[in-house]
Amino acid sequence: MTAHTETGAQGIDAYYAGLGEHEVAPLWKALRGLLPKEPKSRAVPHVWRYETMRGLLMRAGELVSAEEAERRVLMLVNPGLDGAAAATTNVYAGLQLVLPGEIAPAHRHGAGAVRFIIEGEGAHTTVDGERTIMAPGDLVLTPNSSWHDHGNQSDSPVIWLDALDLPMVNAIEGNYFELDEEQQEQELAKPVDASRRLYAHGRLNPVWQQPTGQFPSPLINYPWSRTEQVLREAVDVDAGSPYDGVVFEYANPLTGGSVLPTLGCFVQQLAAGLRTDAHRHTSSAVYQVVSGSGRTIVDGTTLEWTTNDTFVVPGWAVHEHVNDGDEPATLFSVTDDPVIRALGLYREEAVERQS
Amino acid sequence: MTAHTETGAQGIDAYYAGLGEHEVAPLWKALRGLLPKEPKSRAVPHVWRYETMRGLLMRAGELVSAEEAERRVLMLVNPGLDGAAAATTNVYAGLQLVLPGEIAPAHRHGAGAVRFIIEGEGAHTTVDGERTIMAPGDLVLTPNSSWHDHGNQSDSPVIWLDALDLPMVNAIEGNYFELDEEQQEQELAKPVDASRRLYAHGRLNPVWQQPTGQFPSPLINYPWSRTEQVLREAVDVDAGSPYDGVVFEYANPLTGGSVLPTLGCFVQQLAAGLRTDAHRHTSSAVYQVVSGSGRTIVDGTTLEWTTNDTFVVPGWAVHEHVNDGDEPATLFSVTDDPVIRALGLYREEAVERQS
Amino acid sequence: MTAHTETGAQGIDAYYAGLGEHEVAPLWKALRGLLPKEPKSRAVPHVWRYETMRGLLMRAGELVSAEEAERRVLMLVNPGLDGAAAATTNVYAGLQLVLPGEIAPAHRHGAGAVRFIIEGEGAHTTVDGERTIMAPGDLVLTPNSSWHDHGNQSDSPVIWLDALDLPMVNAIEGNYFELDEEQQEQELAKPVDASRRLYAHGRLNPVWQQPTGQFPSPLINYPWSRTEQVLREAVDVDAGSPYDGVVFEYANPLTGGSVLPTLGCFVQQLAAGLRTDAHRHTSSAVYQVVSGSGRTIVDGTTLEWTTNDTFVVPGWAVHEHVNDGDEPATLFSVTDDPVIRALGLYREEAVERQS
Amino acid sequence: MTAHTETGAQGIDAYYAGLGEHEVAPLWKALRGLLPKEPKSRAVPHVWRYETMRGLLMRAGELVSAEEAERRVLMLVNPGLDGAAAATTNVYAGLQLVLPGEIAPAHRHGAGAVRFIIEGEGAHTTVDGERTIMAPGDLVLTPNSSWHDHGNQSDSPVIWLDALDLPMVNAIEGNYFELDEEQQEQELAKPVDASRRLYAHGRLNPVWQQPTGQFPSPLINYPWSRTEQVLREAVDVDAGSPYDGVVFEYANPLTGGSVLPTLGCFVQQLAAGLRTDAHRHTSSAVYQVVSGSGRTIVDGTTLEWTTNDTFVVPGWAVHEHVNDGDEPATLFSVTDDPVIRALGLYREEAVERQS
Repeated sequence: MTAHTETGAQGIDAYYAGLGEHEVAPLWKALRGLLPKEPKSRAVPHVWRYETMRGLLMRAGELVSAEEAERRVLMLVNPGLDGAAAATTNVYAGLQLVLPGEIAPAHRHGAGAVRFIIEGEGAHTTVDGERTIMAPGDLVLTPNSSWHDHGNQSDSPVIWLDALDLPMVNAIEGNYFELDEEQQEQELAKPVDASRRLYAHGRLNPVWQQPTGQFPSPLINYPWSRTEQVLREAVDVDAGSPYDGVVFEYANPLTGGSVLPTLGCFVQQLAAGLRTDAHRHTSSAVYQVVSGSGRTIVDGTTLEWTTNDTFVVPGWAVHEHVNDGDEPATLFSVTDDPVIRALGLYREEAVERQS
Repeated sequence: MTAHTETGAQGIDAYYAGLGEHEVAPLWKALRGLLPKEPKSRAVPHVWRYETMRGLLMRAGELVSAEEAERRVLMLVNPGLDGAAAATTNVYAGLQLVLPGEIAPAHRHGAGAVRFIIEGEGAHTTVDGERTIMAPGDLVLTPNSSWHDHGNQSDSPVIWLDALDLPMVNAIEGNYFELDEEQQEQELAKPVDASRRLYAHGRLNPVWQQPTGQFPSPLINYPWSRTEQVLREAVDVDAGSPYDGVVFEYANPLTGGSVLPTLGCFVQQLAAGLRTDAHRHTSSAVYQVVSGSGRTIVDGTTLEWTTNDTFVVPGWAVHEHVNDGDEPATLFSVTDDPVIRALGLYREEAVERQS
Repeated sequence: MTAHTETGAQGIDAYYAGLGEHEVAPLWKALRGLLPKEPKSRAVPHVWRYETMRGLLMRAGELVSAEEAERRVLMLVNPGLDGAAAATTNVYAGLQLVLPGEIAPAHRHGAGAVRFIIEGEGAHTTVDGERTIMAPGDLVLTPNSSWHDHGNQSDSPVIWLDALDLPMVNAIEGNYFELDEEQQEQELAKPVDASRRLYAHGRLNPVWQQPTGQFPSPLINYPWSRTEQVLREAVDVDAGSPYDGVVFEYANPLTGGSVLPTLGCFVQQLAAGLRTDAHRHTSSAVYQVVSGSGRTIVDGTTLEWTTNDTFVVPGWAVHEHVNDGDEPATLFSVTDDPVIRALGLYREEAVERQS
Repeated sequence: MTAHTETGAQGIDAYYAGLGEHEVAPLWKALRGLLPKEPKSRAVPHVWRYETMRGLLMRAGELVSAEEAERRVLMLVNPGLDGAAAATTNVYAGLQLVLPGEIAPAHRHGAGAVRFIIEGEGAHTTVDGERTIMAPGDLVLTPNSSWHDHGNQSDSPVIWLDALDLPMVNAIEGNYFELDEEQQEQELAKPVDASRRLYAHGRLNPVWQQPTGQFPSPLINYPWSRTEQVLREAVDVDAGSPYDGVVFEYANPLTGGSVLPTLGCFVQQLAAGLRTDAHRHTSSAVYQVVSGSGRTIVDGTTLEWTTNDTFVVPGWAVHEHVNDGDEPATLFSVTDDPVIRALGLYREEAVERQS
């Protein structure tokens, strides 16, 4: 008995101590940490106020030269994620300032990006040889592995929201980075806004351009002029979703699916006075307020927001939107929904309202 | 020996004579007829001139009442197809006149239809409870098994091109017909032009409407205002296809594919002075001239066409388009392409120009 | 008034008489014929008894030389289809005899074929350079546009069921025929039964062979040894479908879908004493009895069948299967299901039993 | 000048110091860390020798009771990943011992798992009410969110390789865990090995079981008896891939795709004397040696392996396989390939051999 216990106790300690040299570890001591009870995110709900953000960006414009900064972006760092470059667990977001005359030199990377223009007209992004001129409300794609550079030839500062799949792509080690050694700005290989002219204005697909795959969307710029018209025409048709009001997904013209394999983009309008039902789902979202004011209640926390603010709803967080005002409120959002679904992990449930 | 030969000759005749009662027939006597050397269509190239067609339609308007006619349609009967209701082997086409105040009562059928409006503004089609108001150039879908009725509440006659998959669907015995016994015109279940307001103006898909399948396209009316804008914006971008110029397919927003499982619709612009390369493919097409004049050379036959004419290119017929004029020419077309491809029978080859 | 009436009556006759020269016809006089009330097939239920068929085939073997016959096949001609080469509206079927030492020279065509071996072991089919040796119960594919030749190097006659999509492919004018001018039998480009060795024995797909598309199935021969084992193992698992008993579809390993884009193949086992429920669907089927006896009641007609008989169930015909015997009955079938579904025309409904 | 510099330097420091309270951070100071030059994995090549592993497992069997251990698994901890529960960056692997009479109680989780049986016959896994009896070489799936329990009713210890998508699913916070509070072992809802009997023996899919989605594979156990037969039949057909020899993917019968949305499984045979070409790709793999001996050279490191050893090749690592022996060597592997592809991050390149 004693011997056995001794052997047992001593044996176990020695056993555990010896496992490391064999590059193994006992699952039974780690099981609980590896298998959480719920898909609860470490990320927390948060709002970044544009008033503050704009001030910080403009100050960065004074303090940091474009050459120094290369990318003058303030990353939105979720308070729950220990300083990681992530607004939600899976979505990186940042606010970028490009001053008149500045450029961001041509590069590409494994991570895919979307940009939503907040203020300033006339800056451009060039994607794989196609330049697009950007205006507020435009959604601009720089897909995974596409060469891209930015510039601002207007007289005013331009600010946009960057959203990338960086946390996911870095977690699975799928990222890489290349700078174009030969040119700061890409030579234009196509007419300016070629894809917008071919794809943006309706539901017709050019036949002579055969897609080589399902991704990425061939449309680089989903212009606000179209988005705004869709919202304007849609609001009389239907009340939309009980959770989101009149809500549209920006679609890949060739498939009807999400704009990137990793990120989905949405725009929604909450009518004046609307209070949505509450639900939760395993995908997370970064919201950019296009116009109007309101609040979103997330796991009991109320996020007050107004035009140009940015806020986040973590995965599996219960949320509902409220527009107490007299005007409709319009929200753009970018989510990890395509990945969560592709991996078979999407779950959604209706929940009682929190108030 | 003799007996054997005798038996052989007599035997064969008796043998052949006796097969019928067993409901069998010798393949070896039928092989050549069943297996043609080439996918050569019995259909022939042909133009129906709108000037003539319009006169015949208007005369029908005088001679035949709407009640008598129910569908006052002149079917375009391909001269090569022995009077079959078919403009090409697989595509039915007809020109329909609806006079002010007339209606075509609600019905549905297994065959799917598209309509391209030629003249007259303000007539309507109602599809499964959604009414759309039609203008020249609009493409209107009444998919397979959808309830639909038409009416003309304007002051002018309305004429459109009907195209259906009728020859194919009847050949495989997939058709059926139902009249709505309860109502001549459907009650409206949605706002007028609901789907156009949700889907037509850009590349955004309503999220709260989950499609139940891949077909049909949820967009009932692809309005000319959008189509015209796409063409206008596209012509500076690229020369398009060597065979068709700047050519677009009307797409199902949910899939990027054809508008119906059985019919694909296209619009193309031939620049002033353009002569395309020649090719042939196993799909056939009915063309409706939207504007401009030109000619299409089909298997050596020159089809001259001008605004509002209708012409056909049979399957596997060599064809090239010529626009000798000073203005661009715009062609709408409807084809059996989706079926030919779904059955694995699509083939295409470049051919030397015929002139 | 009188003038008007006169004009009307005379006018209409003259009008109708004059339409032909313009290659148009009045839809309103043809509407009923073009739009049948129901998807009722002209084809009728029918059984071809193998005892009779075998005799006729063997007699053909004496009377008609292989060179004369080229394809010594008795086509099963549905009594309802006016002598068309069609067992159901959309599926051609025939019974083919190849005598020892005979070959059928290499050729290809737009129509796709499947063969189900009824008797005789050791004949071969070569498909695009791959030879397969055939045994009773094997399902052998010669897909659309594949080169194929047959030969019988055994000592016994070989008889199989041919099924083709010929009626559909001819109706849409997608067919063509080529004889290999250079060789009667193809040179073998791969080991004998290469695809069977790679694909038939489980659920593993060779990685180094990248499919170029979804069709056709890369497996040329679905051997009976596998089919028989699946049936044997499955019967204890579950009663299967109420309409068909334990029923399996032969699947394309690369997609899980039908073996050809135009034809689906199935095998089913009806347990001793089973009487299925009745239903009808818009697809039609040719059945080959593999073993056992029973009857199928089709639109009120009872088809009695036994081993090796062939029978047909037309589209939209109500049918139920009965196995009154003490042994299970096994049926192979080939249907137009993939086409009916691809065109959006599949409908099915449960019906009261007919007896 | 001085003022400016001072302001600049002091200003910048103060600026940086103040950013944290606003939950933002300067991208321009983090850019290099976020965007690595290459998709270089932190994971390193490594072999775990079965001789050692088996000893450690058996010792754990003595020291730790089943109740204490719950899951008596030694996790394979990649030396490059700082103790994370990960064999490669994206794939968790562990070796599990179940002693005679032991069970692992019913539970489920968001992560999906596959198991490859190394030794011991007669243990079972029950997945969503279906029990399968396992033998060496069997691949057993417990997909994402499926209830599963294990037990060993045989007289011998059973050891298998567990592989899970845990690192990915945890990184994107898609995981959760539930224990079945009502039962330790699930009641059986289907016959034992029902799915193996329906799906494993060929290419036939049961028609009466309609899949509700693309995933997971309905086949719970891909038995070694089938796998072994495929390998045996295939080796004479073709040399297979230049990088992997004769290599097969375990396929989802309903789609032809990977067995889980997150993990792909493969089996390959390296002929005696084979040295493969070298390549690298962005997916990573855990290999389990089924039989034979050889070595794999990974980024210049030679991994020697023999029967039952486990080794890993990180993503983007150059690798080639060598079988110097007289017998073929057979490797099972599990990879993150489906995720890498779904996210558009798959890249592959041929590389010069490393020796």
